[in-house]
Amino acid sequence: MKIGIVGLGLIGGSLGFDLRSQGHKVFGVSRRESTCNKAIALGNVDEASVNLRLLAPTEVVFICTPISLIVPQVKQLIDHLSPATVVTDVGSVKAPIVEAISPLWDHFIGGHPMAGTADSGIEAAQRHLFVDRPYVLTPMTTTPTRAIAVVEEIVRSLGSKIYYCQPEQHDRAVSWISHLPVMVSTALIAACISETDPEVLQLAQNLASSGFRDTSRVGGGNPELGVMMARYNRQALLSSLQQYRHNLDELIHLIEQEDWQILEEKLQLNQQARPNFVE
Amino acid sequence: MKIGIVGLGLIGGSLGFDLRSQGHKVFGVSRRESTCNKAIALGNVDEASVNLRLLAPTEVVFICTPISLIVPQVKQLIDHLSPATVVTDVGSVKAPIVEAISPLWDHFIGGHPMAGTADSGIEAAQRHLFVDRPYVLTPMTTTPTRAIAVVEEIVRSLGSKIYYCQPEQHDRAVSWISHLPVMVSTALIAACISETDPEVLQLAQNLASSGFRDTSRVGGGNPELGVMMARYNRQALLSSLQQYRHNLDELIHLIEQEDWQILEEKLQLNQQARPNFVE
Repeated sequence: MKIGIVGLGLIGGSLGFDLRSQGHKVFGVSRRESTCNKAIALGNVDEASVNLRLLAPTEVVFICTPISLIVPQVKQLIDHLSPATVVTDVGSVKAPIVEAISPLWDHFIGGHPMAGTADSGIEAAQRHLFVDRPYVLTPMTTTPTRAIAVVEEIVRSLGSKIYYCQPEQHDRAVSWISHLPVMVSTALIAACISETDPEVLQLAQNLASSGFRDTSRVGGGNPELGVMMARYNRQALLSSLQQYRHNLDELIHLIEQEDWQILEEKLQLNQQARPNFVE
Repeated sequence: MKIGIVGLGLIGGSLGFDLRSQGHKVFGVSRRESTCNKAIALGNVDEASVNLRLLAPTEVVFICTPISLIVPQVKQLIDHLSPATVVTDVGSVKAPIVEAISPLWDHFIGGHPMAGTADSGIEAAQRHLFVDRPYVLTPMTTTPTRAIAVVEEIVRSLGSKIYYCQPEQHDRAVSWISHLPVMVSTALIAACISETDPEVLQLAQNLASSGFRDTSRVGGGNPELGVMMARYNRQALLSSLQQYRHNLDELIHLIEQEDWQILEEKLQLNQQARPNFVE
């Protein structure tokens, strides 16, 4: 197939590697000429351009830009496509994107490969990035079956685990396990650095070990990414945060009341529940 | 020297290994006969008994029991010791222990080696466990210089990084970087499992990855340990939790107000502060 990729970063570049190795012809578009040249030199794409016109002959296009650019890029892109071309995106939030694009393009299906790494950019792209990783697809009831089938076949060929759900369900699920942890974790760092006794602060810094390291890791990550999560998944995240605050208040109350038995029961419940999320 | 160890678990057993290898004669006391036999067989101690009388000839005693047993064990132990014997403990909370023991025994100094592992018990004991790990000592102004010097020399011989502070400073520092993370992390699990749509909950479980794994790790740990932290470091933990709640509310407010610039600044501050705690 002729496959287009808009946005040649970690995800777009990795996708290019895998699709080319399967014999597809891959056309890449980046805003920067230098990225186009790198993508050709590294072998992520067959052809590359800063101009969306390059994608006119494609049968499927993956939009792999930062989330804020997905809708604007699709709006520009569709002038260049034949109406049967299937468009999909890889944004980490789905409802606002699906709502914005569906009225513009019939053959659109939202997607989210959960295959991020700490690195970004075309140089971070790697082969087999998507193997055994979740890849969520969020078709609407109106999405043409062919569009779903085409994207599903490609995603299956990447070795991903495919999940189907509604865009809103996706956004609530990732608000729990991806976006809420970032806020919970960054608030931990904020609380620790508010310590006003410099000796205690220094001691805390000296004594911090694996517990603090793990719990604060995602909260100390890329600030732009954190803002993007909050901005584009605002409603789901706020609702997760309110629930979290309630659970936190419950713990505070139990400790204030010295109700050690109920506290232990809660800790046990959480200990038992965690393996349902991660082994 | 003749050194006693009360409580032959991970810390007591590991201490025994290192002290024996330096030529000290190590006497161990455990509540269980079977643990005494294991400690002799494994080589953690030279002699072992369920009876504290065994420690009569010792010059230094390390109390390595669970935190709730430290004070009761010291009360029983001191009947058997000569008045010059130095007593120290390894409890993860210091103020209540130091307050309770100091009036009972002149030659007492509180200590806290920060060298836990996920495992516990005598079988988990290992050589060189304390190398390059923090070891906090919390003498009082009234603690005899000799008691401090004796314990410091032993701790130094273990290869630990020694920190001196007041018991209350220790407790505040560990509430920030050890006890608060447990509560923050366990509340995350509690919030996630409160999801009422079974499809969203299932999806969240399927999509959970390294972010959720790391942020929820200490919250899914040993419930008894979590209760002990809350119980024995209650005041410091409550004060850390109130501060944390304030920082969380600030984030919620910024997201509600869609104040993305200040949110990004906060996330940046936290990102920059984290390396002061962990590399």
